[in-house]
Amino acid sequence: MIDIRDRVRCKALHDKIVSAEEAAAFIKPGMNIGASGFTPAGYPKAVPLALAKRMAQDPFKINLWTGASVGKELDGALAAVGGIHKRMPYQTNTDLRNALNSGEVEYYDLHLSESAQLTRYGFLGGKVDVAIVEACAITEEGHIVPTTSLGNTASYVQSADIVIVEVNTTQPLELEGMHDVYVPLDPPHRQPVPIVKVDDRIGTTYIPCGPDKIKYIVPCDITDDVRPFGPIDECSQKMSELIIDFFKHEIKVGRMPKNMLPLQSGVGSVANAVISGFVDSDFTDLEVYTEVIQDGMLDLTDAGKLKFASGTSFSPSPDGLKRLYSNIGVYRQKMMLRPQEIANSPEIARRIGIIAMNTAIEFDIFGHVNSTHIMGSKMMNGIGGSGDFARNAYLTCFFSTSTAKNGAISSIVPMCSHIDHTEHDTDIFVTEMGLADVRGLSPRERARVIINNCAHPDYKPMLLDYLKKGEKATKKAHTPHVIKDALSWHARFIKTGTMKK
Amino acid sequence: MIDIRDRVRCKALHDKIVSAEEAAAFIKPGMNIGASGFTPAGYPKAVPLALAKRMAQDPFKINLWTGASVGKELDGALAAVGGIHKRMPYQTNTDLRNALNSGEVEYYDLHLSESAQLTRYGFLGGKVDVAIVEACAITEEGHIVPTTSLGNTASYVQSADIVIVEVNTTQPLELEGMHDVYVPLDPPHRQPVPIVKVDDRIGTTYIPCGPDKIKYIVPCDITDDVRPFGPIDECSQKMSELIIDFFKHEIKVGRMPKNMLPLQSGVGSVANAVISGFVDSDFTDLEVYTEVIQDGMLDLTDAGKLKFASGTSFSPSPDGLKRLYSNIGVYRQKMMLRPQEIANSPEIARRIGIIAMNTAIEFDIFGHVNSTHIMGSKMMNGIGGSGDFARNAYLTCFFSTSTAKNGAISSIVPMCSHIDHTEHDTDIFVTEMGLADVRGLSPRERARVIINNCAHPDYKPMLLDYLKKGEKATKKAHTPHVIKDALSWHARFIKTGTMKK
Repeated sequence: MIDIRDRVRCKALHDKIVSAEEAAAFIKPGMNIGASGFTPAGYPKAVPLALAKRMAQDPFKINLWTGASVGKELDGALAAVGGIHKRMPYQTNTDLRNALNSGEVEYYDLHLSESAQLTRYGFLGGKVDVAIVEACAITEEGHIVPTTSLGNTASYVQSADIVIVEVNTTQPLELEGMHDVYVPLDPPHRQPVPIVKVDDRIGTTYIPCGPDKIKYIVPCDITDDVRPFGPIDECSQKMSELIIDFFKHEIKVGRMPKNMLPLQSGVGSVANAVISGFVDSDFTDLEVYTEVIQDGMLDLTDAGKLKFASGTSFSPSPDGLKRLYSNIGVYRQKMMLRPQEIANSPEIARRIGIIAMNTAIEFDIFGHVNSTHIMGSKMMNGIGGSGDFARNAYLTCFFSTSTAKNGAISSIVPMCSHIDHTEHDTDIFVTEMGLADVRGLSPRERARVIINNCAHPDYKPMLLDYLKKGEKATKKAHTPHVIKDALSWHARFIKTGTMKK
Repeated sequence: MIDIRDRVRCKALHDKIVSAEEAAAFIKPGMNIGASGFTPAGYPKAVPLALAKRMAQDPFKINLWTGASVGKELDGALAAVGGIHKRMPYQTNTDLRNALNSGEVEYYDLHLSESAQLTRYGFLGGKVDVAIVEACAITEEGHIVPTTSLGNTASYVQSADIVIVEVNTTQPLELEGMHDVYVPLDPPHRQPVPIVKVDDRIGTTYIPCGPDKIKYIVPCDITDDVRPFGPIDECSQKMSELIIDFFKHEIKVGRMPKNMLPLQSGVGSVANAVISGFVDSDFTDLEVYTEVIQDGMLDLTDAGKLKFASGTSFSPSPDGLKRLYSNIGVYRQKMMLRPQEIANSPEIARRIGIIAMNTAIEFDIFGHVNSTHIMGSKMMNGIGGSGDFARNAYLTCFFSTSTAKNGAISSIVPMCSHIDHTEHDTDIFVTEMGLADVRGLSPRERARVIINNCAHPDYKPMLLDYLKKGEKATKKAHTPHVIKDALSWHARFIKTGTMKK
């Protein structure tokens, strides 16, 4: 067993250091497990692997609550042995995705900012029975120093009777000091979250816990299961250029300060391309208030363009993680992790005026967005924080390539097959074809701008035809749909494998 | 002309008192007009009527921005002469509704909490050219004392170059002191809104303006065009009982304090029935943080059950208005009007933990809600504040009778024909058939609870059949839709006049 005693600074806790198997044996069927972790970063690994091993021999299920997606050692291993009954609030694991799309796992997909408070309110079927938390270290007082994510961990620790801590020796001790832990009181006692600037500090650098609550401490030396990014492709590059040109225009006409407003950028390659676009721009003093800190933010720092970034997880590529760790002394001056309830807080998003940039699976001509479902039924990942930001941002931008599946799918459709963000929450749409600014437009006006600016030429005539038929059928109603044909594009794809006629 | 000089306490302004016609002559084609008014309360009447008269002779259009719906003297009169090009953010007028459903008016339907800030940001096509504001009085310093609503008025006055004030002598002077005017700064300068309790005062009792900005002052003696409520019918009565029983259960299991949390209640007869239900209950010390203060709140006060209510408008029935005015000395101890940006503030709704109760046109088996569109195309009124509250509430409840049009329409459908509130934002559904608590449930689980508890017996087998077919077609995908049939109920209604097969 790896020696972690130097990281467990509360000596009274040394007796609680056990093997992963011993800790996993404590988990009972039907328990609600609150785990650390947000976008494969900072999640427990050793205990879940031991738990999955136990479940493989003696099958049972637990409910799993995390911050967001976690790596294969948790979601993957438990899904593979059928060990999850209910899962919330977000996932990206293939095995788990298959399980929740086949009736094996019940998935509760919700706004990431709300997940902690809903567990505290007792709305999700009982409380947290056991919190399993990855830590860099345990302080002299028995408090927990988190690793590469903060997520919902502080709330789960607060709510749980029992805490199991995994001390991960691959996580550098320099992470200590990079967290700002703050758990709001619940109504009717809640107070304003006192953040007015991206770098405001309002809490502690550790998760308050105390030695009594900690039942077991388990050593772990498995690294975060972070993923490489693909190279920036031509479409992403084009979208990045379009949005940066648009921002420059907004600054020019006085609708945005010279150094912009705090940026939020979703996870993935388009988001990464957009952030990279800023690296090559003449913007300076950029601020980021987001969920996930990825390679682009490191690039911004290295280019001297980042004033400050706060998020709830560090989830760069494997190369990015190496860069982060090797130069952590510099990055820790510029970056901070907050609980996701604060990183994604509607209150803060609206106050500081975030510019929200997220990816859509599809959007429709009237401005609604599908972020979660393939052809209306199959869950992809989840809404994540996109709703927290889209609803409350200063400016809400959604990105998608104009087509998918080699052109068989148009990402701009007559009506979304699932709606996660409504027409009331969207401002800017970007595809590699162009940018549509729909602020202040009626649905009929929006439809023309979206079709003309964003649709692929193969689908543009079909979309215009749909709009005209709708205007005729409804005598120019506010949202002129031909209801019987509204989802016919998706039905056609399901039947024939293409949305084309 | 009515003598209003005693209400214009800034004597330097007496020279600016003119006729409605003279003031209306100042309005130019294409101007953005920011008017006071929220749910036919506190809107200007004399100047709009004069403007409509002028437009009837010499046609031209303006853009009309208000707080929410306004009475026939503004929306009705201008729509009747084709005088509106663009309208936001909410309406309930028949003539205007027809105009925006026939391509004559472009309507921008948005969250009421966002409308003021979007005009300040300059996102809606220019600034406010002229603000037209109904007032009780003008102070010695030239500031404006509003009447029965606050809405977006303070922001429109702040943004406009020119202000026209209608001093309405039918509005009692005792309204002075009942307003709490606070306009937040815009990002990056915005601060926390310092409200932690329903009765917290954070602003001024008047709208800051000053004499220089006021161009004209017009007398008016037309009363607010408030509407009577129907008697509480059996369905509303039943829904009221169901939700109050549910609240009692929540208190019993410790998920809510004994005197509840602040109530928000939409406009209309169901909402009124629910509030009336509290009058006959043993609840005490109730708090209300809502948009519109209606008769039910007067009843709660009279019954000694109301601790405090804040809203953005007084819009009771004609009888209620008489009661309010005749006993205003009592009600003013218990009630306050705020700007709608504050009354509907996501920040406050989440902080104080509002219980949101709103009416749906239809909801679907997976928990999405349509608040705005008839059969997916025709705009009814608008989203209003429902999204502000539904997204951020402690508990989000939607009400609807299980059927409409004598049973030809099921209010519970396979898929909503328009979505204003997504599955991520809904907790409780109530029809006269029963209550569905979908907190923490997956879409497949939700569907069974909603169908079994809320659907009308005529439609229950059809809905269950749809669900089963969806599970078969998608092999139990996360949201098991039969996409080609998802909107077939609406298509059938459009074709045959009924959703029944």
